[in-house]
Parts: sequence; C-alpha cells; structure tokens
Amino acid sequence: MSSPSQFPTHYGYASASDVNWSRSEKAVARKAFDAALRRELQEVMRKAKQMASQIKQPGDLGDLEQYLTQRRKEIDRKYDYRYSHLTLILGKLLHEGWLGEEELRGLREEKLKSIRSTAEFLAKEWT
Amino acid sequence: MSSPSQFPTHYGYASASDVNWSRSEKAVARKAFDAALRRELQEVMRKAKQMASQIKQPGDLGDLEQYLTQRRKEIDRKYDYRYSHLTLILGKLLHEGWLGEEELRGLREEKLKSIRSTAEFLAKEWT
Repeated sequence: MSSPSQFPTHYGYASASDVNWSRSEKAVARKAFDAALRRELQEVMRKAKQMASQIKQPGDLGDLEQYLTQRRKEIDRKYDYRYSHLTLILGKLLHEGWLGEEELRGLREEKLKSIRSTAEFLAKEWT
Repeated sequence: MSSPSQFPTHYGYASASDVNWSRSEKAVARKAFDAALRRELQEVMRKAKQMASQIKQPGDLGDLEQYLTQRRKEIDRKYDYRYSHLTLILGKLLHEGWLGEEELRGLREEKLKSIRSTAEFLAKEWT
C-alpha cells in the first residue's frame, strides 16, 4: 500500500482470481496498465506545474493542494491491479483516453469485448 | 473558521479578554499580525512555485502536496488572533523573522517586554 501523500508508480499483484489470464495476456495487460498510469501521472505533473506557476494569492495554494489530494485519491482508487476486475479498469482507461485500443492487442476476443463494452457504457453514461 | 485546504488571509476577532489592549494598540497589533501572515504566505507561495517547477517524477507530487498541507495546518494553528495570548504570538513571529520590532512601535512597554521575552525564550530553545 502507498502511504498518504504518496503518488505511486505501480500497483498490486496477482491473486487466485487470475486463472483466466494467460501469461502473455498478463504481460499485455500489465504493460498497458502501467503506460496508462504513467500518462495520467504525467498529466497531473503538467497540471500541477501550470497551477503553481499561476499562483497569485493564498487561495490559489489551497486550490493546488486540493487538486493534488483529489488526484492522488482518484488515481489510488482507480489503478487497483486485480485480474478479477481488470477488464473493467482497462475499459475505463480506454474510455478516458489514457489507453489506446492498439495497446490491448494480444488479449483474447472475449476480454476485448468486455473492455470495449465497458468503455462504450461509460461513454454513454457521460453524454 | 477556514474550510479544509483553505489558506486564510486573516483570522479571528476580539473577545472579552481584550480589555488590556487600547484601541491604538489593537491597531498596531493587527497591522503587525496581518503583515507577518502576508509575508509567511508569500514565502509559501514562492516555495510552492519553486517545488512545482522542479517536479520530475510522481513522488515529487506527494512532496508538494505534503508541504502544502503541513504549512496550511501550521499557519492555521499559529495565526490565532486572540488578545489573551497575542504577546506570545507576536513574540513567536518576531523570533521567526516574520515581524520586525519596529512594527510593534505603539505598544505599551509591558507588552513589548513580554513579546521580546517570548522571542528570546524561543531563540534559546532552538540554539
């Protein structure tokens, strides 16, 4: 587990629920997952720098602190690497644009379907 | 009271314990107190900008978040404007350099003594 105020760089490990993932699928999923996390963290870094550079009054410090806390908690909740719900996570990352579908090449069709279906569901949710 | 993640710009109001402060002393104290708070917040803003500009990896985000949270809490605790312990606060601000002694001109000698004595006590504490 990460400690408070710690932006982690990767998460979690395999458990009993990973029986349906072949070794090569696990490698594809892990790589895609890590790449998405890296991109999202890059975006938080970019935005934090931008917010800080625009600080003009004390209230802006609170805004920056809140942004950092909120993003850390969101990322911490979202990037929970467990095979039991990995298709849901990858679907969400696909929907949010942190992941491209080409990065999922190598997963079996049933998983791709499930991932796409999650992404489509979320896209409908927010339109 | 300030809400979480809110860096406040001034604090508190008079109560029954302000009987020993004349109107002109109150004006001097308030001005000095507000100036010290303003300077300390300026320093937090400067430091936050500097830390953000040097962010290179996700761990640096956690450091910045922690710095902001810690400084907000410290400032929130310290700048508690109550006449009952205002000489202690002013002494602490004097010791920390957020306040110059010339800014206290206009306070009665007994108060200046008490403020200086607090500053000297703190100086000894940390040497």
